[in-house]
Amino acid sequence: MLHIGIDVGGTNLKAGLVDEQGRILAVKRVPLDFQGPERFAKTLAELSEAVLLAAGARMEDVDYVGAGMPGAVSGGQVLFITNIPMQNVPLGDLFRSYLDLPLLLGNDADCAAVGEYFCGAGRDTRDFAVVTLGTGIGVGLILDGRLRGGVASSEAGHLTICHGGEPCNCGRRGCWEQYASATALIRLTKEAMAAHPESALHSVAAKDGTVEGRTAFQAAEQGDAAALAVCRSYVEYLASGAVSLINVLRPEVVALGGGVAAAPEALLLEPLRQIAERECFAGHGGRATRIVRAELGNDAGIIGAALLGRAI
Amino acid sequence: MLHIGIDVGGTNLKAGLVDEQGRILAVKRVPLDFQGPERFAKTLAELSEAVLLAAGARMEDVDYVGAGMPGAVSGGQVLFITNIPMQNVPLGDLFRSYLDLPLLLGNDADCAAVGEYFCGAGRDTRDFAVVTLGTGIGVGLILDGRLRGGVASSEAGHLTICHGGEPCNCGRRGCWEQYASATALIRLTKEAMAAHPESALHSVAAKDGTVEGRTAFQAAEQGDAAALAVCRSYVEYLASGAVSLINVLRPEVVALGGGVAAAPEALLLEPLRQIAERECFAGHGGRATRIVRAELGNDAGIIGAALLGRAI
Repeated sequence: MLHIGIDVGGTNLKAGLVDEQGRILAVKRVPLDFQGPERFAKTLAELSEAVLLAAGARMEDVDYVGAGMPGAVSGGQVLFITNIPMQNVPLGDLFRSYLDLPLLLGNDADCAAVGEYFCGAGRDTRDFAVVTLGTGIGVGLILDGRLRGGVASSEAGHLTICHGGEPCNCGRRGCWEQYASATALIRLTKEAMAAHPESALHSVAAKDGTVEGRTAFQAAEQGDAAALAVCRSYVEYLASGAVSLINVLRPEVVALGGGVAAAPEALLLEPLRQIAERECFAGHGGRATRIVRAELGNDAGIIGAALLGRAI
Repeated sequence: MLHIGIDVGGTNLKAGLVDEQGRILAVKRVPLDFQGPERFAKTLAELSEAVLLAAGARMEDVDYVGAGMPGAVSGGQVLFITNIPMQNVPLGDLFRSYLDLPLLLGNDADCAAVGEYFCGAGRDTRDFAVVTLGTGIGVGLILDGRLRGGVASSEAGHLTICHGGEPCNCGRRGCWEQYASATALIRLTKEAMAAHPESALHSVAAKDGTVEGRTAFQAAEQGDAAALAVCRSYVEYLASGAVSLINVLRPEVVALGGGVAAAPEALLLEPLRQIAERECFAGHGGRATRIVRAELGNDAGIIGAALLGRAI
């Protein structure tokens, strides 16, 4: 059987036809252009048909369409999405009136976890977490071989690492994502630039035309002291939440995804592993967790959405 | 079928014969008196026979013995115990040479979760956590109806709530249990006593002959300002970790156990629920978690150990 996976982003919809091995056979992309839930369901259906056509496959080869949404979902229901005005929308039912296939919904972090679990960094595990470092921190959990999805979907980006710290959009203070998301890294970088006019951070940022998540890592690779301090402090914050997550769940593997995860191993993964080795409870017995880089990159969303039916 | 559950504490072993409904039919207790793993396995076997005898039951009515241990275990193996010198001991095998029954091991927090799940505050749930507030914070998780036990047993007491904060025995800084265990509450109480010689905390502590977890709650019930501040600050720390745990796992119910959980509802559970309602991610969609008091008290250990076989 084949599955269709749709990655719903803030600006684009990307659909892929995916086989049982997680290989993408064809991809189609359209702008989001949101004009209400009805029209959105119709767009998902049309996009599904377009990707089938592009691959020369037939409707009866496909058993469901999976969609990864940037928000909270449960079953075929959209509960709440921050950047697309939908709340308590029965998207699965709406979709069915345009295309006779079940629509499975997952949030984007959960889809990343499903994709990596079957086809990437989580292969050969049963207990697995993906931590996606982006605008916020998205965490997807596979526990005992099943996705923690729907109403139980993890919001581990909102574990507090600093009691009474930075305010978060969620209403709490001190959430992990306020310190260890790409957004937070950019904030730390800008603070260091303001404090260190001599730093190479300025020339690196000027070349890119903007401060990005990678700015600090690039300047640090040139040996810049202020940039090295930013990277060190960022990794400490990242480790603070990662070790907490690991202590709560003791997974076999935690995979880091998102743009920041592409940073040089010596500046991100190596110091992170050192802190984890020192601080994780595994030192006192029980399972030690491996920390690795996610493998699927931008395809994780499509592949994960397509394989949702195998994990829920 | 009947099961034997043994609660292994730092000073005593308590064994109970337990039926399928979690009712305790007989209890036997002996001092720990640890003299090596071999002798310990023999004591567990003798205690099992003694509780059978006390209940007038036969060996063939029992299918296994479960033991709740104050440390890390996996299968029939003791990995590490803080207060009893055993490390990597095949306790199940040793036990079997004295009594022909399987010995299942769980850690004490996990046994509390199993007991409450089948017979207490976790009845009618599939996703459930018990948080035991004692010397440290022990957390047991039932996810999708299965215990997260053995090598995956939760150490959520060691999630950081204060990055760079109080040092913890585990090697980290800022662990939740350094702020919200009974031990931490006693520390907060003593600090308030030192700062407020006029506080009713002094007279309450004098009456008990010592500062205990309940000292602050008792003085707060008399309207003492310093005691009220201690309770408020304690609940904020408790909430900090509890909301993080809830955001990571979105369980249906979190039950608080241990002596501190017996504090007056208006001073502990009510303000805790208010903070959780305000701060949990459920406000943005997904499942809201109920916070309740654990129900089984001191019997949770025996009942949970006895029912281990149904949860793993």
